[in-house]
Amino acid sequence: MVGERPVGRARAVIGVVRESAQGERRVAMVPKVLERLSAKGIEVVVQPDAGAAALIPDAQFERAGAKLADPWAADIVVKVAPPTEAEIARLRSGSVLIGFLEPQVRPEITSALRAAGVHGFAMEAIPRISRAQAMDALSSQGSIAGYRAALLAAEHLTRFLPMLTTAAGTVPPASVLVLGAGVAGLQALATARRLGARTTGYDVRPEVADQVRSVGAQWLELDIAAVGSGGYARELTEAERVDQQHRLTDAVMGFDAVISTAQVPGQPAPVLVTAEAVAGMRAGSVVVDLAGAGGGNCALSEPGETVVRDNVTVSAPLNLASSMPEHASELYARNVLALLDELLDEQGALAVDFTDEVVAATCVTGQDGQS
Amino acid sequence: MVGERPVGRARAVIGVVRESAQGERRVAMVPKVLERLSAKGIEVVVQPDAGAAALIPDAQFERAGAKLADPWAADIVVKVAPPTEAEIARLRSGSVLIGFLEPQVRPEITSALRAAGVHGFAMEAIPRISRAQAMDALSSQGSIAGYRAALLAAEHLTRFLPMLTTAAGTVPPASVLVLGAGVAGLQALATARRLGARTTGYDVRPEVADQVRSVGAQWLELDIAAVGSGGYARELTEAERVDQQHRLTDAVMGFDAVISTAQVPGQPAPVLVTAEAVAGMRAGSVVVDLAGAGGGNCALSEPGETVVRDNVTVSAPLNLASSMPEHASELYARNVLALLDELLDEQGALAVDFTDEVVAATCVTGQDGQS
Repeated sequence: MVGERPVGRARAVIGVVRESAQGERRVAMVPKVLERLSAKGIEVVVQPDAGAAALIPDAQFERAGAKLADPWAADIVVKVAPPTEAEIARLRSGSVLIGFLEPQVRPEITSALRAAGVHGFAMEAIPRISRAQAMDALSSQGSIAGYRAALLAAEHLTRFLPMLTTAAGTVPPASVLVLGAGVAGLQALATARRLGARTTGYDVRPEVADQVRSVGAQWLELDIAAVGSGGYARELTEAERVDQQHRLTDAVMGFDAVISTAQVPGQPAPVLVTAEAVAGMRAGSVVVDLAGAGGGNCALSEPGETVVRDNVTVSAPLNLASSMPEHASELYARNVLALLDELLDEQGALAVDFTDEVVAATCVTGQDGQS
Repeated sequence: MVGERPVGRARAVIGVVRESAQGERRVAMVPKVLERLSAKGIEVVVQPDAGAAALIPDAQFERAGAKLADPWAADIVVKVAPPTEAEIARLRSGSVLIGFLEPQVRPEITSALRAAGVHGFAMEAIPRISRAQAMDALSSQGSIAGYRAALLAAEHLTRFLPMLTTAAGTVPPASVLVLGAGVAGLQALATARRLGARTTGYDVRPEVADQVRSVGAQWLELDIAAVGSGGYARELTEAERVDQQHRLTDAVMGFDAVISTAQVPGQPAPVLVTAEAVAGMRAGSVVVDLAGAGGGNCALSEPGETVVRDNVTVSAPLNLASSMPEHASELYARNVLALLDELLDEQGALAVDFTDEVVAATCVTGQDGQS
């Protein structure tokens, strides 16, 4: 059941909340993007300390035109991580919540929002069409995760990524393999290459080979193809998976660092780096596994932890984008702003067209909070 | 007083010890370099687990020809960090110890070695002449520290170093200032530049401006010059220091990351980044201070710690080279090997020419352990 309808009201008030999830350093709006809302006369209410973990002081939000107060009763509440039950209870019936709502992994959140009469817009449900690219938070956060993954590989590797020439001799460049050539994978390849590594990319979708080569990496040919819908890889058959694992295990052993980014939405992450592969890597090598949230692409990953196994460091950070919180927040805020442009009319009032392709895909609770 | 003289004996035995200093992950010899000693028929004894912290397993040392046993009674003991009193007690009179012995900072170590009849060769005392370049461990470890400092700046910065173009807009590249254009500073500049940052270098020695420009960085002109001996900066006068601080404070505020590497051997590190400068930096910016061992170049540095002050991260790591232990050890081992070539004759016996320029400078205990 829904109380007030969010359509046709006066100018909307936007609330920016302080994230409560452990380790979440991002905030859904940054001063620079907030200024654009202020310039349109839209009132933005920011929870005190909302930017603290991103090292963005309250005063910067105020200078951008925000009011520091309770944001939870706003017409549109913007956040990053999924809301807790207690947070959902603070939302007003008829209001809009924008954030990562994990509709596939945690459908109970969608149900709770619907029950509270809140229109939930899930950033991960933004359709991958060109019109919606500016709203694509999975891509913006993925590019940050890829960049940070390459830095993390460099940090944990006991060796240089670049070739180094010294008076005492030369050390060769490190070799980096990236598994999964989505936004995160391509950014990881580009960053490792920038740092001077020899880079190689692999994906089950052979048509991304050119993208891999375009960032200066070699393409690892394993002769297995699995293209799914929406630009994601489809799940492999069991036989294909076993075959892939054997071939990958052989390949992985030759690299100094492996960065894995293979996720299938709503499914456990495929195991691409076996324990045998890790044991076969040279001592001091590194695996950075970005699929930790889905259980990991490496059999030895402990999601959220960095461990050493067989003298190889295996790091499976969760929420890597959050480790660079200002720009992660800024890009996310721009994505949110682009979505807000779809939800607000010229006067800044909520005017949601539930028949619109982007709105229909992203509003996981449905028009009446009951779909 | 000295027992046996180290000259004219039979083929020397070389001992590689496990480091005991807290946080020291390096080892003074790696399998790849050890092979060259083995090839000459020189016996090398490696302490079990000597390479463990560098993720170099004992088996690799054995495959390179080493024996796993007690290395402390060897003719030449090689290590990285200064020896403890207990370690000095394990050294044989008449033996040679090679390592960072901190002759200027901790002269009591030199005294204790002399009293034990041990010939101490301090790697930081290698003269900076072209013949000794291959032995220059300060340079090899400095280049690692500079590389790691740039990675650390990237890690702590809440923003990207490179420019990033996304569907939701562009973020500009970060600006990085490096203070001190020695080996570490130049490598930090080169690495930050590789990662896509706009880089600027500063040094009190104006003649290094071309080296700064050669790694793609701008030169920060403050109109203060202080060239000392041995390629190091000399200490500034008090008036010069105050003037420099004022000008630097103004300059620093404009950068996203500042990496400071200014050390004067045997002196406290000069304060180049004032508390006022840090407070004036944009929130989310970073100071990486490589002069922590000398108290730090930043007034807010806490040596060995990473702290956040005024929304700026100030990191003052100690022994940053140790954070990339395999290559740090490998380059150090090559430096040691080059020094060993000076100390051993064709047959691999100790044959030290104490009148040699390199030997005279590096052997801090003097010929008879009594100078």
